[in-house]
Amino acid sequence: MRAITLDSREESKLLLTEVQTRTLLPGEVRVLIKAAALNHRDEWCRKGLYPNIQNGVVLGSDGAGIVTEIGEGVAYDWLQKEVIINPALNWGENQKVQSASFEILGMPRNGTLAESVIVPVDRLHDKPTHMSWEEAGALPLAGLTAFRALTYQGDIQEGENLLVTGFGGGVAQFAVQFGMALGANVSTSSSSPEKLARAKAMGVSNTFNYLDHNWITKAVDDTNGFDLIIDGAVGDTLNHLIQVAKPGGKIVCYGATLGNPSKIEARKIFWNQLKIMGTTMGSDLDFKNMVALVCEKKIQPIIDQVFKFDQAEMAFDRMRDGKQTGKIVLVP
Amino acid sequence: MRAITLDSREESKLLLTEVQTRTLLPGEVRVLIKAAALNHRDEWCRKGLYPNIQNGVVLGSDGAGIVTEIGEGVAYDWLQKEVIINPALNWGENQKVQSASFEILGMPRNGTLAESVIVPVDRLHDKPTHMSWEEAGALPLAGLTAFRALTYQGDIQEGENLLVTGFGGGVAQFAVQFGMALGANVSTSSSSPEKLARAKAMGVSNTFNYLDHNWITKAVDDTNGFDLIIDGAVGDTLNHLIQVAKPGGKIVCYGATLGNPSKIEARKIFWNQLKIMGTTMGSDLDFKNMVALVCEKKIQPIIDQVFKFDQAEMAFDRMRDGKQTGKIVLVP
Repeated sequence: MRAITLDSREESKLLLTEVQTRTLLPGEVRVLIKAAALNHRDEWCRKGLYPNIQNGVVLGSDGAGIVTEIGEGVAYDWLQKEVIINPALNWGENQKVQSASFEILGMPRNGTLAESVIVPVDRLHDKPTHMSWEEAGALPLAGLTAFRALTYQGDIQEGENLLVTGFGGGVAQFAVQFGMALGANVSTSSSSPEKLARAKAMGVSNTFNYLDHNWITKAVDDTNGFDLIIDGAVGDTLNHLIQVAKPGGKIVCYGATLGNPSKIEARKIFWNQLKIMGTTMGSDLDFKNMVALVCEKKIQPIIDQVFKFDQAEMAFDRMRDGKQTGKIVLVP
Repeated sequence: MRAITLDSREESKLLLTEVQTRTLLPGEVRVLIKAAALNHRDEWCRKGLYPNIQNGVVLGSDGAGIVTEIGEGVAYDWLQKEVIINPALNWGENQKVQSASFEILGMPRNGTLAESVIVPVDRLHDKPTHMSWEEAGALPLAGLTAFRALTYQGDIQEGENLLVTGFGGGVAQFAVQFGMALGANVSTSSSSPEKLARAKAMGVSNTFNYLDHNWITKAVDDTNGFDLIIDGAVGDTLNHLIQVAKPGGKIVCYGATLGNPSKIEARKIFWNQLKIMGTTMGSDLDFKNMVALVCEKKIQPIIDQVFKFDQAEMAFDRMRDGKQTGKIVLVP
């Protein structure tokens, strides 16, 4: 089958190539991919910045498709089912944190940027019927991450003030959509007036351009501070978030695209009783609850652009440059 | 009455002086102080590093004594009662965080380092009968802070691994005692072998001298990491705490004697799903629950040393130099 693998010899580090597939183990299924999508994780892999990188692995965590083959012990009615794939494997029983054997589809296990992917049957969920293939393929990883950040970690309540930073990114778009679905007053930030206009059109209450030198004052004036902030950047902007958090508020970080903060204001954290919380991906229960919310509220992922597999480099570059609003989808 | 006031003209910044008292307002009581105790807050006030410092204010947040006078509307049976004083005023209704009008006894409102103090009657609790006056006077502020850090914020569970840093300090001693009373496996750290020996004698499972260059490895080897860490230092040691926290663990900070961290490892926070939480003092409910635990388990505060009011400078210097194990008590 054709697949996009990591290849450090290539200038683009990506190789669209013929990959040998294998026979199924008991409990596994083969899913014919109808649509896959990119996450920052794929770009970190391309850059060689993800831990335990291996050449030759098929990239991609997000995918939706049709079950075309089942392994021993898998019920026959899975055959021909339209499914989305939970890319989080071996989370374990502890809701607080993933187990030591936790894995994400797409490194080191072969992922979804392929004509088909092999996964354990327990990773499958019915494709939400209100979604196109592209939308379904775009949901899993970022939807899961946003849902856990908002609910299990952030414990968002109806009527609370939510700030989602960096609108346009995959997790951010879902955090905005899920936040609105859960009844929060949602604000979002970006450096792009176009992205902020898009967010406004979606129904976000307040938008902030973090290139404005006075966005912090404006945010506090406009909202009286945030009960919950969902952020994937960290870096020195964490101190800005500490300033716009309401006393008693939470800052949930799912990534650190800006790296480590060079300093944080400790006194403000303890005096204002703030919580800075890390989160990554989510448990099987988080995934199940996320899909239930998406189906109940008929939430449709925002698709930025759809690329063919042979345009993979363009797709990855768009992700790297942060030009997207919504998910970047790849179809075989 | 005689009282210890802040006076920036004095070399010691402390003045043992005659202070005019005032008549009671409705709802207030006068408590004759039998024992008071010091907190880092008093030393911050002496150094002029606390916000809204005013000269002439009677210092001191901790106190226990006898009600000698009641204001209008206060029930007669409060007269002659033996009480401890909750030094947290106007917390408000929100359990998450104190209100904007929150105050702590001893700055800017006159405090407990005096022959008597005036407080609203709702700040009084019965003196625990198993305690001496010195022990009762030592309990309030640090006990409240430790209890909230462990329970409301840290949500400590029986059998969990707890690390309390900086054994010897007031909050740390109570966090160790309350942690053991609540069934946690308690470890503690210090730079002083004497303090660690004292902790061992109290029944602490593991002790770590943070001057040992390999204490982090040792702590992880010995305990498999901590579910909860209670810390009042922050500074760059926060990164050590991030390393010894169990994945999914919490670090609750009630102060920052070492100042701001110059860098924190963001990736470890989100990948390990850690929580860094600030806490300060506690609500009225926290105080009530703290006193209930102390009485149920007959917990006795550790008293470092008892000073007379005219030895106040020595007492404050001992606090500043971190020489104490347990609370530094002052009696009129």
